Amino acid sequence: MPANPTTMADESLLMKVPAWWNCMTGFEEMRDKARLVSEQVLRPNAEISDREGTYPRASLQALADAGFGAVTIPKEYGGLGAGCSGFAILAEIFAGYCASTTMVWVMHTAAVQTLFMAGSEEQRQRYIPHVVRGQIGGLAFSEPATGGHFWNVVSKAPRHGDGYLLNAHKSFVTSAGEADWYIVETNSPDSPLSDPLMFLIVENNQEGVVAFPFDALGLRGNNSGPMKFNDVFVPEHNRLGEEGGAGFYNDTVIDPFFLLGSSACWIGIAQGAISTAVDNAKKKIHADTGQSVANYQVIRHEMAKAQILVDSARSMLYRVAEKMDEATRKGELLSSCLYPLWELKTHAADIVIEVTNKALQISGGRGYLKGNIERFMRDGRAGAIMGPTNEVLREWIGRTMIGVPWL
Amino acid sequence: MPANPTTMADESLLMKVPAWWNCMTGFEEMRDKARLVSEQVLRPNAEISDREGTYPRASLQALADAGFGAVTIPKEYGGLGAGCSGFAILAEIFAGYCASTTMVWVMHTAAVQTLFMAGSEEQRQRYIPHVVRGQIGGLAFSEPATGGHFWNVVSKAPRHGDGYLLNAHKSFVTSAGEADWYIVETNSPDSPLSDPLMFLIVENNQEGVVAFPFDALGLRGNNSGPMKFNDVFVPEHNRLGEEGGAGFYNDTVIDPFFLLGSSACWIGIAQGAISTAVDNAKKKIHADTGQSVANYQVIRHEMAKAQILVDSARSMLYRVAEKMDEATRKGELLSSCLYPLWELKTHAADIVIEVTNKALQISGGRGYLKGNIERFMRDGRAGAIMGPTNEVLREWIGRTMIGVPWL
Repeated sequence: MPANPTTMADESLLMKVPAWWNCMTGFEEMRDKARLVSEQVLRPNAEISDREGTYPRASLQALADAGFGAVTIPKEYGGLGAGCSGFAILAEIFAGYCASTTMVWVMHTAAVQTLFMAGSEEQRQRYIPHVVRGQIGGLAFSEPATGGHFWNVVSKAPRHGDGYLLNAHKSFVTSAGEADWYIVETNSPDSPLSDPLMFLIVENNQEGVVAFPFDALGLRGNNSGPMKFNDVFVPEHNRLGEEGGAGFYNDTVIDPFFLLGSSACWIGIAQGAISTAVDNAKKKIHADTGQSVANYQVIRHEMAKAQILVDSARSMLYRVAEKMDEATRKGELLSSCLYPLWELKTHAADIVIEVTNKALQISGGRGYLKGNIERFMRDGRAGAIMGPTNEVLREWIGRTMIGVPWL
Repeated sequence: MPANPTTMADESLLMKVPAWWNCMTGFEEMRDKARLVSEQVLRPNAEISDREGTYPRASLQALADAGFGAVTIPKEYGGLGAGCSGFAILAEIFAGYCASTTMVWVMHTAAVQTLFMAGSEEQRQRYIPHVVRGQIGGLAFSEPATGGHFWNVVSKAPRHGDGYLLNAHKSFVTSAGEADWYIVETNSPDSPLSDPLMFLIVENNQEGVVAFPFDALGLRGNNSGPMKFNDVFVPEHNRLGEEGGAGFYNDTVIDPFFLLGSSACWIGIAQGAISTAVDNAKKKIHADTGQSVANYQVIRHEMAKAQILVDSARSMLYRVAEKMDEATRKGELLSSCLYPLWELKTHAADIVIEVTNKALQISGGRGYLKGNIERFMRDGRAGAIMGPTNEVLREWIGRTMIGVPWL
């Protein structure tokens, strides 16, 4: 092997990685389009968002302009109709360039899908055309009182005139103060149903809506700060679905979409990190040994270990996404896919920690300097913490394995 | 949660694992049939093979009787026509019961497929009907001189009369002395081709064929001992394919089949271990705490970690197997799938070590006693060592990642 692998040329001696290993079949064109907008807009803006903690407005608009504003919404409503597979592929690609933009977009896509599934025809017509053009939806779910257990909240919105009076403290609302509207999960004390959970659409400019800043290790462009909804009046026509019973949409839309999209994000970060590390290792030549870092066997083996981990999670991602689309085609609820999604999210959020740390080690001092390697590590570290945390998911998986109720 | 999870009953509160997560769609019936013969024959014989180091003759005959003697051979030749997907599913199931039988069967299936792909119509007709009824084929590839680098051998078989005179020392020949015939990889000093590798069919009862015993940590029923082929005359009609150029079949049949089938075996062992450990943990009640072992949170989390690892490898396995079948349908060579197979085998052989060790820890002293938990650990430990070893594969993967020739 030559000391500097960048000088190699003979293609016929190289092992070819088949196209299907890195992309779901049929989504190559969409992936290429996603790469293009990511190269042109997400990449240059990512560093600014990270350094200054600014919301990635330009990147999000670029995604909408590229046709990615409503990717899981049927074409007859102006969406892309790309299903869960398209959603996963896109999130994976975007995350290799700007994880902040990606997580905002994942939450947005989950919010839009929830609005579509739980909403009335009138609500669809009122919101979908705008998100196609670049409006952003958010999910205001977690509350300080119950932390990462976002499916349990303590806030309430009693009936008030021809609507509801919402009072809620929310934590870690991605796009806090930046989204055009939020789906707020709260309780209806007036619900006749056994499940009092209720979803309300609240617009960002409504009176009583307050957002607070976000300053964190990574995902620094997310504006995932706390929000307060103080005596916010929500007209009945902005209630999504019934007065209570919204837990159904947690199991069939919110959880499946969040788990799938966020897993794709962690996998994309991990791939971005290892690909960058490979580039770094090939370019760095040690003058004393005359060898590139990539030419040290131990470094190549760390690369291989990292890539195998990424591809193990990616294989789970692609299988689950394809089966979610199959379930949708058959008219089945996506809650049927929750168990594989639990495993997928746990694995993706675990491996991104290991892989980004390997990428940093491979990149050496250069990777430790402010730049995309250390940013990948900081951004990816969010995954295992985001609710349902990896501990919560392993508890649910473990309970399922021993045959007891998961909740 | 009740102290003893075995008392739980209400099915509606349990999370359901979708059928597709644990079996490739369309192969459920084949899997069930495999489970039946495994329960009835492989399970009771596995302990005997392990304890006494006896070749699993009865188990292998039972597999043939169940229709699994030539699973990848087209139906018009008497095979099952189950493709790579069927091969993978079956190996995975069998390995949960008897890994020795499984590895013999994997090598046999690879040998039969090689005979079919490289062989003449006359050779197919001469051997396939017998393997359908229970004859066993073996692969005599590795040699002491080149160890796990089984694609490079030093032995030779010069022309001799109307055939060849084979002299070869082989190591780790699964079914050594027990198979009915072997495909022996050797060099043809008379080959006009740049690749002198040649495959010869040698029958077990030929003069000059000597097999030696096998006594190892695990896979103790495999008879994977050394073999010597001393002045063995091989008639020309028992040469498989051309006089030289057999490396083509290494890349397109032997490697793909060995890597796929053995990976399925490691995954099946890992699943067998964790499933047994879950049973053990549920049954063991500590009188002092009144709790089952499964009721300790830390134990459930170890179970979850193990299951996620198994399913990450399984997702790779199913994707690769399905794509191999797709490649075959399109008339493409299986060498196009080698890179994913490298990653799959490395991951499967890595996780089986971690998972079987977790299963042993979960099972405690009971698992340490002679029985299937400690056997799973010993059997599974072979994977990372079998050539191409995990180190060799990570080297190939790493070289591919940095864009240099893998060999």
